[in-house]
Amino acid sequence: MTAPGIGKIPYGGDYNPEQWPEAVRDDDHRLFTQARIDTLTVGVFAWSLTQPAEDAYDFGVLDGILERAAAEGRRVCLATGTAALPPWLARAHPDVNRTDFEGRRHRYGQRHNFCPSSPAYKSAATALAGRVAERYAGHPALLAWHIGNEYGGACYCDLCAEAFRRWLREHHGGLDALNDAWYTAYWSHRYTDWDQIEPPSALTEHWRGPDHTAFQGITLDYLRFTTDALLGCFLAEKEAIREHSPETPVTTNFMGMYRPLDYHRWAPHLDFASWDNYPPLDAPPTWPALAHDLMRGLKDGAPFWLMEQAPSTTACRDVNPLRRPGELRLASWQAVAHGADAVLYFQLRASRGACEKYFGAVIGHAGRDDTRVFREVSHLGREFELLGDTPLGARTPARTALLFDWDSWWALEISDGPSRLVRYQDQVHAYYRAAREAGADIDVVPVTAGLRAYDVVLAPALHMVKGDLAGRLEAVAARGGTVLTTFLSGRVDTHDRAFLADVPGPLAPLMGIRVDEWDARPADTAHPVTLGDDKDVVHTDARLVFEIVLPRGAEPVGTYQADFYAGTPAVTRHRFGERGGEGWYVATALAQPGVDWVVRRVLARHDLIGPYADHPAVETATRVAPDGTRLLFLLNHAPEPARLTAHATATDLLTGKRSERSEPLTLDPLGVAVLRLR
Amino acid sequence: MTAPGIGKIPYGGDYNPEQWPEAVRDDDHRLFTQARIDTLTVGVFAWSLTQPAEDAYDFGVLDGILERAAAEGRRVCLATGTAALPPWLARAHPDVNRTDFEGRRHRYGQRHNFCPSSPAYKSAATALAGRVAERYAGHPALLAWHIGNEYGGACYCDLCAEAFRRWLREHHGGLDALNDAWYTAYWSHRYTDWDQIEPPSALTEHWRGPDHTAFQGITLDYLRFTTDALLGCFLAEKEAIREHSPETPVTTNFMGMYRPLDYHRWAPHLDFASWDNYPPLDAPPTWPALAHDLMRGLKDGAPFWLMEQAPSTTACRDVNPLRRPGELRLASWQAVAHGADAVLYFQLRASRGACEKYFGAVIGHAGRDDTRVFREVSHLGREFELLGDTPLGARTPARTALLFDWDSWWALEISDGPSRLVRYQDQVHAYYRAAREAGADIDVVPVTAGLRAYDVVLAPALHMVKGDLAGRLEAVAARGGTVLTTFLSGRVDTHDRAFLADVPGPLAPLMGIRVDEWDARPADTAHPVTLGDDKDVVHTDARLVFEIVLPRGAEPVGTYQADFYAGTPAVTRHRFGERGGEGWYVATALAQPGVDWVVRRVLARHDLIGPYADHPAVETATRVAPDGTRLLFLLNHAPEPARLTAHATATDLLTGKRSERSEPLTLDPLGVAVLRLR
Amino acid sequence: MTAPGIGKIPYGGDYNPEQWPEAVRDDDHRLFTQARIDTLTVGVFAWSLTQPAEDAYDFGVLDGILERAAAEGRRVCLATGTAALPPWLARAHPDVNRTDFEGRRHRYGQRHNFCPSSPAYKSAATALAGRVAERYAGHPALLAWHIGNEYGGACYCDLCAEAFRRWLREHHGGLDALNDAWYTAYWSHRYTDWDQIEPPSALTEHWRGPDHTAFQGITLDYLRFTTDALLGCFLAEKEAIREHSPETPVTTNFMGMYRPLDYHRWAPHLDFASWDNYPPLDAPPTWPALAHDLMRGLKDGAPFWLMEQAPSTTACRDVNPLRRPGELRLASWQAVAHGADAVLYFQLRASRGACEKYFGAVIGHAGRDDTRVFREVSHLGREFELLGDTPLGARTPARTALLFDWDSWWALEISDGPSRLVRYQDQVHAYYRAAREAGADIDVVPVTAGLRAYDVVLAPALHMVKGDLAGRLEAVAARGGTVLTTFLSGRVDTHDRAFLADVPGPLAPLMGIRVDEWDARPADTAHPVTLGDDKDVVHTDARLVFEIVLPRGAEPVGTYQADFYAGTPAVTRHRFGERGGEGWYVATALAQPGVDWVVRRVLARHDLIGPYADHPAVETATRVAPDGTRLLFLLNHAPEPARLTAHATATDLLTGKRSERSEPLTLDPLGVAVLRLR
Repeated sequence: MTAPGIGKIPYGGDYNPEQWPEAVRDDDHRLFTQARIDTLTVGVFAWSLTQPAEDAYDFGVLDGILERAAAEGRRVCLATGTAALPPWLARAHPDVNRTDFEGRRHRYGQRHNFCPSSPAYKSAATALAGRVAERYAGHPALLAWHIGNEYGGACYCDLCAEAFRRWLREHHGGLDALNDAWYTAYWSHRYTDWDQIEPPSALTEHWRGPDHTAFQGITLDYLRFTTDALLGCFLAEKEAIREHSPETPVTTNFMGMYRPLDYHRWAPHLDFASWDNYPPLDAPPTWPALAHDLMRGLKDGAPFWLMEQAPSTTACRDVNPLRRPGELRLASWQAVAHGADAVLYFQLRASRGACEKYFGAVIGHAGRDDTRVFREVSHLGREFELLGDTPLGARTPARTALLFDWDSWWALEISDGPSRLVRYQDQVHAYYRAAREAGADIDVVPVTAGLRAYDVVLAPALHMVKGDLAGRLEAVAARGGTVLTTFLSGRVDTHDRAFLADVPGPLAPLMGIRVDEWDARPADTAHPVTLGDDKDVVHTDARLVFEIVLPRGAEPVGTYQADFYAGTPAVTRHRFGERGGEGWYVATALAQPGVDWVVRRVLARHDLIGPYADHPAVETATRVAPDGTRLLFLLNHAPEPARLTAHATATDLLTGKRSERSEPLTLDPLGVAVLRLR
Repeated sequence: MTAPGIGKIPYGGDYNPEQWPEAVRDDDHRLFTQARIDTLTVGVFAWSLTQPAEDAYDFGVLDGILERAAAEGRRVCLATGTAALPPWLARAHPDVNRTDFEGRRHRYGQRHNFCPSSPAYKSAATALAGRVAERYAGHPALLAWHIGNEYGGACYCDLCAEAFRRWLREHHGGLDALNDAWYTAYWSHRYTDWDQIEPPSALTEHWRGPDHTAFQGITLDYLRFTTDALLGCFLAEKEAIREHSPETPVTTNFMGMYRPLDYHRWAPHLDFASWDNYPPLDAPPTWPALAHDLMRGLKDGAPFWLMEQAPSTTACRDVNPLRRPGELRLASWQAVAHGADAVLYFQLRASRGACEKYFGAVIGHAGRDDTRVFREVSHLGREFELLGDTPLGARTPARTALLFDWDSWWALEISDGPSRLVRYQDQVHAYYRAAREAGADIDVVPVTAGLRAYDVVLAPALHMVKGDLAGRLEAVAARGGTVLTTFLSGRVDTHDRAFLADVPGPLAPLMGIRVDEWDARPADTAHPVTLGDDKDVVHTDARLVFEIVLPRGAEPVGTYQADFYAGTPAVTRHRFGERGGEGWYVATALAQPGVDWVVRRVLARHDLIGPYADHPAVETATRVAPDGTRLLFLLNHAPEPARLTAHATATDLLTGKRSERSEPLTLDPLGVAVLRLR
Repeated sequence: MTAPGIGKIPYGGDYNPEQWPEAVRDDDHRLFTQARIDTLTVGVFAWSLTQPAEDAYDFGVLDGILERAAAEGRRVCLATGTAALPPWLARAHPDVNRTDFEGRRHRYGQRHNFCPSSPAYKSAATALAGRVAERYAGHPALLAWHIGNEYGGACYCDLCAEAFRRWLREHHGGLDALNDAWYTAYWSHRYTDWDQIEPPSALTEHWRGPDHTAFQGITLDYLRFTTDALLGCFLAEKEAIREHSPETPVTTNFMGMYRPLDYHRWAPHLDFASWDNYPPLDAPPTWPALAHDLMRGLKDGAPFWLMEQAPSTTACRDVNPLRRPGELRLASWQAVAHGADAVLYFQLRASRGACEKYFGAVIGHAGRDDTRVFREVSHLGREFELLGDTPLGARTPARTALLFDWDSWWALEISDGPSRLVRYQDQVHAYYRAAREAGADIDVVPVTAGLRAYDVVLAPALHMVKGDLAGRLEAVAARGGTVLTTFLSGRVDTHDRAFLADVPGPLAPLMGIRVDEWDARPADTAHPVTLGDDKDVVHTDARLVFEIVLPRGAEPVGTYQADFYAGTPAVTRHRFGERGGEGWYVATALAQPGVDWVVRRVLARHDLIGPYADHPAVETATRVAPDGTRLLFLLNHAPEPARLTAHATATDLLTGKRSERSEPLTLDPLGVAVLRLR
């Protein structure tokens, strides 16, 4: 099953008419029409309304909302509404409330607040999902099912402890295997009964916080268990829906690079992926781009939905800047360029009260249509209308893959040593950014993905190497491709046990190196590094971790220029196999210019540098529609115009203008072009 | 009832002879006499002595202290002694101990440690207060009653949960009203039973800390409830006192700008206000001045007591600087200048042990009278003696009001968005400071105060607008006055619900503007702002929040010079009504020079710039005695002499010197003059 | 009893073959032989193996390890293995788990995790220690007993509360004495029953954290109680060992300057001292040197063991740098120079899993002998072999003593006022460093130590003065010696009660000064200070605390140059007694150059400046063997060669080279010489 369609990009967002009187709802629909809003996400937090007591359901409000939507010609992404507990449930069954990492049983409050192991929660949530599905399965407005909301967090209660122990039995078999996996001969931890195992928390293994554990093995397993436990909640609701609604696609909104949950474990169970895009303040445009590509990679490249984005400001941050004129449009087209087949906002109308009242909305508290934000939203609505169904179902023809692995993320960041300053996302993003700014389309894929389609595989910070991955990477090189990995890769197995071999463990043959020791330095220490040779020398620097590389077949591409390892390799490449394949190893956290230099060298080997790579602020992205139509999205992230020379003849679908190859092609500041190449 | 009198400014402070043997007490009184100390605050933490067990009272120690005081001709401000629990009570009734914000039931320790909803505490404290009052009501030394001490903090136990629910019933009536007020349609929070409501804490709505709540409504109500619950403790003791002592004035010592308690809710219940002045390190002199004026505003301008100040260092801070020579005298006269009719210290003799042993005292551990501090205290004692009853009961003839509103303070600082960096006190102080340094006397008043006496009303950061306030502010302008407000004003109603109107909501007609959007930026981002016009142009900058103002009748007075809103108004003024009144709006956090410029423009409209406004280090303050005597206090906060030209003929009551109008008038470094103008 | 001997410096470290299969163990012994490793610390965390259930012991693993060690000619430092609970014990007896400072009962996890007051823990640990001792008492491989591991932390459970009350009864006698000691007349704390006393924690007296207490008295006593409670665990195990093994020496590994435990209370109960040396990142070499000397001072100057050090990186820190080439050797020789008679590592082989898998080891995960680290370890092994028994039992002939006092450390750092920025270790280290860099050998001794052997006694930050200490310091000066103390000394008695006298209390007569007041300033405020006179003037600065000194017999040696106390003394000296003795007082936190200047003045009075004092990077240390052999260790801490002129004729035991007096003597970068002077 794939994302549901309405013949164009669904456009709209979260809508909570239950918070408003009738007159306001009238106004809403008038304004929606004005802004070409056709899709409403409804009922996400409606539990306390739809089920005001254990034995009472009241669908009056939802009925009205869906009827009105249908009458107005709009479609609904209908939520089961189970992401926030109703007060009566928390009062009647205190165990639906979570126990937090500090061991404190919570009381009623907030949202995303349920214990995933609580039978009371699960049966109530599943019952509600079934009731909602039963009632609205055939509704003409129904477009998709939206289960829960932004699943996340974790619980550490005794019910979870029990569930964890069951999970461990299933995944380890016996206690001997578990003791071996967790290395419990260390620090007298050998378990002799399943009941002795406690969730890893501030009260057990994590005295110094969530990233500091005495036993990485138990902590990794709890992260996997939590992923599965929350997935279990999703699946129970999905099953309840499927009883009544076998065909309408089901999703839940993810959060991009969200560490607590391994979305790759969830991906097979969604009919289509969707996510909420709230990039960090001042993140470069490649940051959300990476998240888009990660989300697209969940379903093997199939288009996804942008389920939420802020039309203007956020509210939950310490400082909430405004999206400047043009930024919203640019970010929305970026989503489409990376594979989004829907563009939705949180939120359509600003709530009056509670913690998101200052969260930006399409319609503000004054209900006006003459605000800057409303005008920009409306303009974008017209563009999507104009575009019609052209991009729907289109896929990205990437020849570069970037491996993204939650296990490596977790293992790297809960590690004691060598440096807490190394952050998985930073390392992954640096390589992604380099390749994107060089013009490469990239698939961000799990470590289990097939790699045959790719000429280049980037595997930064691949701390954990599982299964046959090393062999599959070697196969890439064996057929002439290039594999790149970095410091702190190839270190541990699936249980976070060090490989009893030279670093980088199973990757060593491909990389042709050996690492015996590694230095770490504070964030303000930069060591100079020289890349290239006399003909093309680049001086950059590196930080955080400095592995000392002994080449065992590889040749140096860059060298350290400081400390006692001055003159030794910082970057190497290794010919591998008969067909000119190579393994590249970057032994330190190079500054971005260094990463750029390395990645462009690698891409150039396979002719993967894009036509506008000299304009780093101009992002390009290609999508190929089912009918073969090739769309090239040009996104100018700079506040100045971009003056390009067209690399091909094409028509801009937003303006209808045709641009000829080799002629000037100008993008406005923050401008967008959607070029049909064929 | 007003502050009690002894024919001069009461001078002395907290005194704990119960910690010392008889010989030391002899010494104390000798030294008190030497320093002209006539007033002793006694018994503040004596509970465990006066009631050593549930059924045993022992007044021997207090008897001795009061007898000795009377014999020496001193007067006593007698505490009920209920601010710190005795160990036996905490052991016998564990529920007298608080449960903290993290949900942890405390055990015995510290002070200000009682649960305000505990019947055991309340009955014990009330009984003690009654006993103390019964015993000392007619005592010749008795000057005033001092209930508790620095009321503050909060409790989150189940008793408080019950009391909170009762409070909510009283204040909201029914659950529907409460659900509406708290906007519980959001995030599935609709309550169907009072018992479902939990105190807002780290375990319920505040996962990220006290200022981060999912529902501002419940948090605001808990702040109000806590204010009232602690007030209930005060009132119960006051009632017990009144049974035996109907006429002696009752107070409790406040803490100036203390966020947790809305002192305006307490003010009607005190016979006179008193407070403890411990300004933050390196605060400008206008900081304590603002607090003085706030305290004076509690009882409609009536004089208050300075109940505590440090004679030299504090101890509780990370770094505790010394008050340099002259600083104590200057601060003490500043208190009197702003309306204090008593000047008291914490503490008269330094304790030997526990956490305040290094807190500065009039008499140190060595018991000397030849220390710098003792000499300065004695000198000041002589000055107060010299002054006699001249200032007693004198009032400040202010024509400028500054609105201070705990609800706005709370609402602003628990808000999600636009910026956690905006702090209420900072904004209020910036405008207060500008007006004070321009020489204006200011009444700092609640939003319910009558505004007829004022030409200028400053209402910075008036986030919440309640009741008929907007109308009363319009009335100020309608009769020709000027009202100034700032960004983030006029946003929410009494339950923190956004107004469904253009920003600044009910203030918009007066301000003649409309605000659709607002930017926020990190603390290190400063945007240039230009104020005035060609004839008088000032370049300053602004930070934190930048509202984008659309004039709707107002004219720009200042404009942004950066970002996409460059050229739009940063400051506006709006003619309002027939009599030349104006509404001024400052749409961003101007740097102090910008605030100064704006405020002086406003004051100048009403001829409220003081005669020494060109000497920003020279503070002036006027008090008018009941007999019409006009006192002008001149306070030189600079470490250099201030060379002024006298604006009027006057006599300095401290020196007896007469200064003629237009002749030179010099103040010593940190010098003080108390000029009798009539 | 003293440290056990094997005719040379024992060399080796922590070894955990129980984590490995047989083949790896074979490899281990081969590599040990290669590296001259002869001593293995075994069984530290083996509890869950040796006692897999309450009623089951299994000594198979330990038997094998010791047999193999004996067969290979190696000796074993055998641990009782009680430092980490086995899971079954925590499950069966939840009260063996600690309750933390926040009042949270922990569940199973981590290590060093037992409640010292739990009868279940104590009986189980003692039983295990007895069993281990019974089995291995006569084993030929046995060299020493190692009880527990790095004792530390604290527990706040109800069992500890009970034990604390018992401890208080023993140490205070009655409640009146306790109330007096703790100054409970303050803040209504007078206790009328022992049961009212709660452990001082976040829930009682410490609302703002471990260093912030309302009552210093109770907190000091809890620190003493915790020291004694953990010592009780040690002693119970030692007694159990002694039943079976009356002669083998017993130790436990300390942690140098470890604040939570007063090692001086433990010292008499160890047969020899041992400690784990993990200096802070970028600490100067005098930092570990101070810790070495402190450890040597525990047993009156007897040699100690270096029980652990990292052969390369640590893992537990945020950033874990590599020990650069030569640093390990230098640090090891520094230990020997300061009195270590054994040099051991943590760890011999890197564990595969858990939180120390990246902790540096002699043998890495790949099991290689051709790594840099293995080569350096082997080289050092050969050097120790070469040295033979020469240094064993040798003592340091110091004429300078530095007082180190846990009570002063605690009292200073839990004090409210004058400045939280003053840290005991920083102040002590500054004076130690100055004296060491001037070439003085130093004994770091408790305040109860005999002082007759010393010409100079340095007593920085001696906040608490107990017993007859002041008199013994006066005696030092009376016989012509020099005593130096600093600001914040002589302030409180053994219960943290201020002396009712001029500051510095009992030290005032010796210092000839009086201090009435003291300023404190933020860390970034430096006040200039001038030291010396016209002939030898030095300009330096000072920070944090500035006491204002009134000389009462003393003469100024340095003066403040800023603030209102400019021109008053910052450093004084006072002639005391008939024999030219002096008391020096430093009233502020001088910058290191100022401390250096002062300390060199003091040392010069007694001809204690070393021959290489002009080379601050060259550390010297003397040891005198039982046979009178005088060894001078020269340690070059610089990365450049040190070119000295030999001050005496000597032979370098590491090279066999003889150097003649007055001839050049060169040390390599990070080089070491062990000169035999006789």
